Amino acid sequence: MGNELLRIGIDVGGTSTKFGVVNEAGKILVQDRIPTASEKPVEEFIHALHTKLAPMIEAHGGKQAFKGIGMGAPNGNLYTGNIEYAANLKWEGIVPIAKMVQQKIGLPATLTNDANAAAMGEMMYGAAKGFQHFITITLGTGVGSGIVVDGKMVVGHDGFAGELGHTIVRYNGRLHKGTGSRGSLESYASATGVRETALEFLDRDATVPSLLRNYTAEQITSETVYDCALQGDAIAKEVFQFTGEILGEALANFVMFSSPQAIVLFGGLTKAGSLIMNPTKQAMEANLVQIFKNKVQLIFSNLSESDAAILGASALVQ
Amino acid sequence: MGNELLRIGIDVGGTSTKFGVVNEAGKILVQDRIPTASEKPVEEFIHALHTKLAPMIEAHGGKQAFKGIGMGAPNGNLYTGNIEYAANLKWEGIVPIAKMVQQKIGLPATLTNDANAAAMGEMMYGAAKGFQHFITITLGTGVGSGIVVDGKMVVGHDGFAGELGHTIVRYNGRLHKGTGSRGSLESYASATGVRETALEFLDRDATVPSLLRNYTAEQITSETVYDCALQGDAIAKEVFQFTGEILGEALANFVMFSSPQAIVLFGGLTKAGSLIMNPTKQAMEANLVQIFKNKVQLIFSNLSESDAAILGASALVQ
Repeated sequence: MGNELLRIGIDVGGTSTKFGVVNEAGKILVQDRIPTASEKPVEEFIHALHTKLAPMIEAHGGKQAFKGIGMGAPNGNLYTGNIEYAANLKWEGIVPIAKMVQQKIGLPATLTNDANAAAMGEMMYGAAKGFQHFITITLGTGVGSGIVVDGKMVVGHDGFAGELGHTIVRYNGRLHKGTGSRGSLESYASATGVRETALEFLDRDATVPSLLRNYTAEQITSETVYDCALQGDAIAKEVFQFTGEILGEALANFVMFSSPQAIVLFGGLTKAGSLIMNPTKQAMEANLVQIFKNKVQLIFSNLSESDAAILGASALVQ
Repeated sequence: MGNELLRIGIDVGGTSTKFGVVNEAGKILVQDRIPTASEKPVEEFIHALHTKLAPMIEAHGGKQAFKGIGMGAPNGNLYTGNIEYAANLKWEGIVPIAKMVQQKIGLPATLTNDANAAAMGEMMYGAAKGFQHFITITLGTGVGSGIVVDGKMVVGHDGFAGELGHTIVRYNGRLHKGTGSRGSLESYASATGVRETALEFLDRDATVPSLLRNYTAEQITSETVYDCALQGDAIAKEVFQFTGEILGEALANFVMFSSPQAIVLFGGLTKAGSLIMNPTKQAMEANLVQIFKNKVQLIFSNLSESDAAILGASALVQ
């Protein structure tokens, strides 16, 4: 204690905010959560956070035992410390959240977007440990990404680089209801995309029997598709094959951009294991030009989903 | 003189190798070229280069007046100083060319691939002067690219990053005869691609009159398409519209990767001016998600094509 070896990680999500105290080894010593409640003024959020964090800090040796606070948030900007116009938070406009937390808690605070924080967590504690060049892709409700080049996060001139879920993989393809774009990676390789692909395939092959037909359209999720695929259902298996092919093609393009050592896949869809890994890997390799083939490790994150957000945020503290 | 203010730039091309002495202001004081003649042993090339460079160096104050030598070459690797398996050079396998030049000339030599060298030239002397985050795209016989993040070239873990011409923009699209891939940017947005698009459109609209029909298929090049477009030919104009749309879509994907301040377009196709710029810019903006819109400068290089290769190579010398 007293050697400034501890970090605080805070992950601001659309519904709830998770936070915890992380030691040098990447162990979360204590964690808790509060509702983000972004429909209320941000000052109330800061107050609630302080109420929970202050005793945690005292119990671990006081401020002098801490290096600082790392925060991940949607549209969090590393350069400014602001959350800027985040679609799934109700705070309006630009919120100088890093500065507010820093002033209230009394420790230096660094902010970035949640996907970049995840990448830092993988580099410091996870599957990308020791890598200087890698990309993390989060396959959750949406598709997020964090890019590391020469050991540093790529945030671009404005702090917003690495929105790979919005890159277009199918010209004039599926409509993304959130952005209005057509054929983006996120519209296919997210949990939402998998569900949509399943509904499309069930409609297309209307006479083909499928375990998925035991569910109503509303009940079908990426999890039900996975369950049915595990039971050998042909349509459900084809959904993952199709999703992996598109994801792999997109990954090939990313490799030809930054030539990473590894791509780390994270998030709910990775539970499908080899059902998603095999077609993804095959499509990635097939779409790489010779000089990049068989060089990139495609791996699943080994961080538990419940810990990764706090670990990733804490890894921002250098 | 004597202050180590001069640089030597060497651009190794498939047919000829250009080189020159560049001063701090980016002026080429003297330049010359020799045949690359890569069908002969590389030692002969090094000898011929030395024979030409040695008197240039003497005439400009001797070695003590020079900071070093920068070299651009196909598949040139910044990390190793080797040319590795370059398809359009006949030297076989791995050629340690930077080391050979350094030993023969007696000045430190740095190598990278020709497209990265072009990016460094734009940053030091050209349209990207002062930018820390930008991408250069060379629209020539092929499509090359150089990516700069935080003022540094992105070369990836193996030195080969930035092969954006090979990224796929049209699923199952046009066959690239060199790589075997389908739908790559290079297969559409290169001089070769423009010619192929023109031939396709002439075939598709077989009953539509066009100035392009005054040429045989063999005579049609990106230049003839440009000439006909300038004269108002509808099919020729549509070729540039189509090419720009595909290029703009690809650029949008690149922006969502590294969020650059600017994209600098260079090479033969840029002679088409607004015919290529307008559809490219429009398609790029249309495919960006909100947070990136109207932020990226899309500009033409202002370096003359004959000087750019030497300037770019010389800019490698730090």
